[in-house]
Amino acid sequence: MAQEVLDCSTYPMVGGDGPHSYARNSNYQKESLDSAKQMMNELIDQHLDPGNHLYSFNPGNSSFRVADFGCSVGPNTFRAVHNIIEAVENKYKSLPVETQMPEFHVFFNDHVNNDFNTLFRNLPATGRYFASGVPGSFYGRLLPSSTLHFAHCSTALHWLSKIPVEVMDKNSPAWNKGRICYSGAAKEVKDAYSTQFGKDIDSFLRARAQELVPGGLMMLVADGLPDDVQMCESSIGENLNVLGSCFLDLAKMGMIAQEMVDSFNLPFYYPSPSELKTLIEVNGLFEIKKIEKLDSSSAKKGVQLDVDVCILHMRAVLGELVEKHFGEGVIDILFERHRQKYIENPILSDERYIKDASYVVFLKRKIKVTYSEEIPYDQLTKLGLV
Amino acid sequence: MAQEVLDCSTYPMVGGDGPHSYARNSNYQKESLDSAKQMMNELIDQHLDPGNHLYSFNPGNSSFRVADFGCSVGPNTFRAVHNIIEAVENKYKSLPVETQMPEFHVFFNDHVNNDFNTLFRNLPATGRYFASGVPGSFYGRLLPSSTLHFAHCSTALHWLSKIPVEVMDKNSPAWNKGRICYSGAAKEVKDAYSTQFGKDIDSFLRARAQELVPGGLMMLVADGLPDDVQMCESSIGENLNVLGSCFLDLAKMGMIAQEMVDSFNLPFYYPSPSELKTLIEVNGLFEIKKIEKLDSSSAKKGVQLDVDVCILHMRAVLGELVEKHFGEGVIDILFERHRQKYIENPILSDERYIKDASYVVFLKRKIKVTYSEEIPYDQLTKLGLV
Repeated sequence: MAQEVLDCSTYPMVGGDGPHSYARNSNYQKESLDSAKQMMNELIDQHLDPGNHLYSFNPGNSSFRVADFGCSVGPNTFRAVHNIIEAVENKYKSLPVETQMPEFHVFFNDHVNNDFNTLFRNLPATGRYFASGVPGSFYGRLLPSSTLHFAHCSTALHWLSKIPVEVMDKNSPAWNKGRICYSGAAKEVKDAYSTQFGKDIDSFLRARAQELVPGGLMMLVADGLPDDVQMCESSIGENLNVLGSCFLDLAKMGMIAQEMVDSFNLPFYYPSPSELKTLIEVNGLFEIKKIEKLDSSSAKKGVQLDVDVCILHMRAVLGELVEKHFGEGVIDILFERHRQKYIENPILSDERYIKDASYVVFLKRKIKVTYSEEIPYDQLTKLGLV
Repeated sequence: MAQEVLDCSTYPMVGGDGPHSYARNSNYQKESLDSAKQMMNELIDQHLDPGNHLYSFNPGNSSFRVADFGCSVGPNTFRAVHNIIEAVENKYKSLPVETQMPEFHVFFNDHVNNDFNTLFRNLPATGRYFASGVPGSFYGRLLPSSTLHFAHCSTALHWLSKIPVEVMDKNSPAWNKGRICYSGAAKEVKDAYSTQFGKDIDSFLRARAQELVPGGLMMLVADGLPDDVQMCESSIGENLNVLGSCFLDLAKMGMIAQEMVDSFNLPFYYPSPSELKTLIEVNGLFEIKKIEKLDSSSAKKGVQLDVDVCILHMRAVLGELVEKHFGEGVIDILFERHRQKYIENPILSDERYIKDASYVVFLKRKIKVTYSEEIPYDQLTKLGLV
C-alpha cells in the first residue's frame, strides 16, 4: 500500500540566517545567477518590447511587474531581481527619450512556510522597486491574470510538487526501496519521477501563462543533465547516492528504522534540455526563445571542490525534509557522516563526474491565445490579437 | 538633550498565536469591524463605479485590487477583506449581466517586523482572492502608482510614525516626565502629539493618493475621541494613565529606573472627528464621503467590562514596545499590577468614562489631480480628466 503522499509544499529551505540557513549556504545558486546575467541582458534587450501596448496599457498604472518564483529567503533572489531590473532599465534607456521609465513592482514567491519574515527584513533599501511577498506553491495560480511582465525562476523547478506515489508503493514495480532518489534505481522509478516532472512543468507553465501579459517574458534557470547523461553518471546523482548510503549506515547502526529509509524519497528531478524543450512545446503556451547550457566553469567547478561548502549547502536545502521524516536527532550525525565520505571518496571531486548543469530557458508568452486558455476571447478580439 | 528618536516602525503587535499574541487578543478590533460592515456595504454600493474606465482599463488585467494597511497577523484583516470583497461583489452583481466579475488581488500591509509568516499560514483557503504581503510603514509609499481600487485601514492610524521629539527633550516645555502618553499632561505635550499626528496623516494620505486609481475608494476606521472630550476624560486615557502609574510603582520598588519611565512614551494619538476632517481637507487629495462615529454599544461596552480580555489586549498591543524599552524582565509584573488596579478601581468599568470611539472615514480619491501630485499630466489630458 502506498504511503500518504508527501506534500512538498510544506518543506522550505532552512530559514533564518544561522550557520545552517539557506541564506548563508546558497552560493551555488548565486554562481548560476552570475553566469546567467550576461545571457539575460542580451535576451531582455532582444525580446522585451516596451512599445507593445500591453506593457503600458493602463495609464497611471504603468508599473513593470516582475516575479521571482521559488525565491527562498535571499540574498540570491535580490541579486536576480537586481539583474532583471537593470536589464529592463537598460532597454528602456535605449528607447526614444519620451518613453517614461516605469515603476517596478516585484513579487517574491515561495511556499507558505518559507521564512518571509527573514526575506522582508533583508530587502535591500534601494528604493528601486516596490516589494510584495506571495505565499504559495508555484505549481498553482498565485496572481491575477496578466499581472506580470517578467517571470523568473532559478534553480527551483527540480523540486517536484510531490513524491510520485508509485515509488512509495511496495506493490509497485517503481517501489524505490533503499534509495532516496532515482539515481541508479530501476527504470520504473526514473519513469515515475519523469512523469511527475512533466505534470508539474505543465502546471507551472499554465499558471504563469495566465499571470503573464500576452507577450510577457519568462526566464528559467533549471538544474538538469545533458541529453546523453544518466543521473548515476553525474556528480549530483553520485552525491545523493552517497547521502543515501549514509541513511543506510544509520539504519544498520540501529539509529533509524530501515523502513524509514525505504519510505524516504527526495522530490527532485533533473531533466535534460531535450526533455524540457518537448514539455514546453507540448504545453504550447510559450514560444521558446532560447535553451542553453550555462557555462559550467564558473557555475559549478569551483563550488563542488569545497567539501564544507557543499555539505552546508546540502544541509540547508535538505535539512527540513530530513527532520520532518526522521525527527531532529539524526541530522548532525547524518551530515557529518556525509562529510567524511565526501572527503574519503575522491570520485566526488572528480571533474569527470561534474555533468549536471544549469540550463537557461527563455520563453515568451504567446500572444495568439485561445478562449480555452482563460483569457477572455472578446478582449483579445478588441485588441486585434486574434 | 532629546533622546534618540524611537522608530515606531520596528514595534509590531505580538506575533505568533500564543496566549499573549495579537492573533488571539484582538477582539476589540473585531467588534469595530463588525460594526463597520453595514456602513461599508452601503458606502461601497453608493460610491463604487465599476463603469469608470479606470477600473477596468487594462484588458486581461481586470483584477480589483484591495489593500489592508496595518493588517497585523489576522484574523481581523481576513474578516475585513472578506467584508470588502463581499460588498464589491454585491455591487458587481447588481450591474448588467455583461459586467464580468473581476479577480481580486489583496495586499496585506504591515511593518517589516510584522509576523508575516503567521499571517500567511493563516490565510483562508477560500480561493476567493490572490494574496500578497507588503512590508513597510504605511506612512510611506508601498505600491506603484494607481495600483489600488480600494484601500482599508482599521484601528491603526492612532499609531504615530514616531514619538514627537519634544516630549523626550528635558529642555522642552513639552517634556513628558513621569507620563507615558499625553493624557492629563501639559498642553505642550498634547500639541506635540497632535502635530505629529497631522504630519503622519498627511504622509499617509499622500502615499495612498498615489497608490489608488483616480476615483478609488478608501475606508478608514480610526480610534478617536468626540470633539468635546479630553484624553483624560476617556476610558483609554484613564487606562493609559493607570498603566503609567504601574510603571511609576515599579520605579519606586527599584525594579526600573525613574529615568527609564520618563523617557518612555507611547506613540498613540486619538484625534477628534473635526480634527480628522480638517486634516483631510488640508491634504486636499480626497473627497470626504462620510465621517461617522461607529455605534459604540457593540464596539466598546461589552469588551471594556471584561478585565482579562482588556489586559491581554493591552499586552498584545504594547508588549513589544515595553520589552524593547525596559527589557524582558518587567512585563509579567507590570501587566499583573495593571490587572489588579483595573479590578480595584471601578472607575475603569464606569460607562461614563467610555467616551473614546471608532470613527468611519470614507474617502474617494479625487479624479481631477494636478501634475504636482505625480500622476503624469499628459496621461490625464489623454483621458479627458483635466
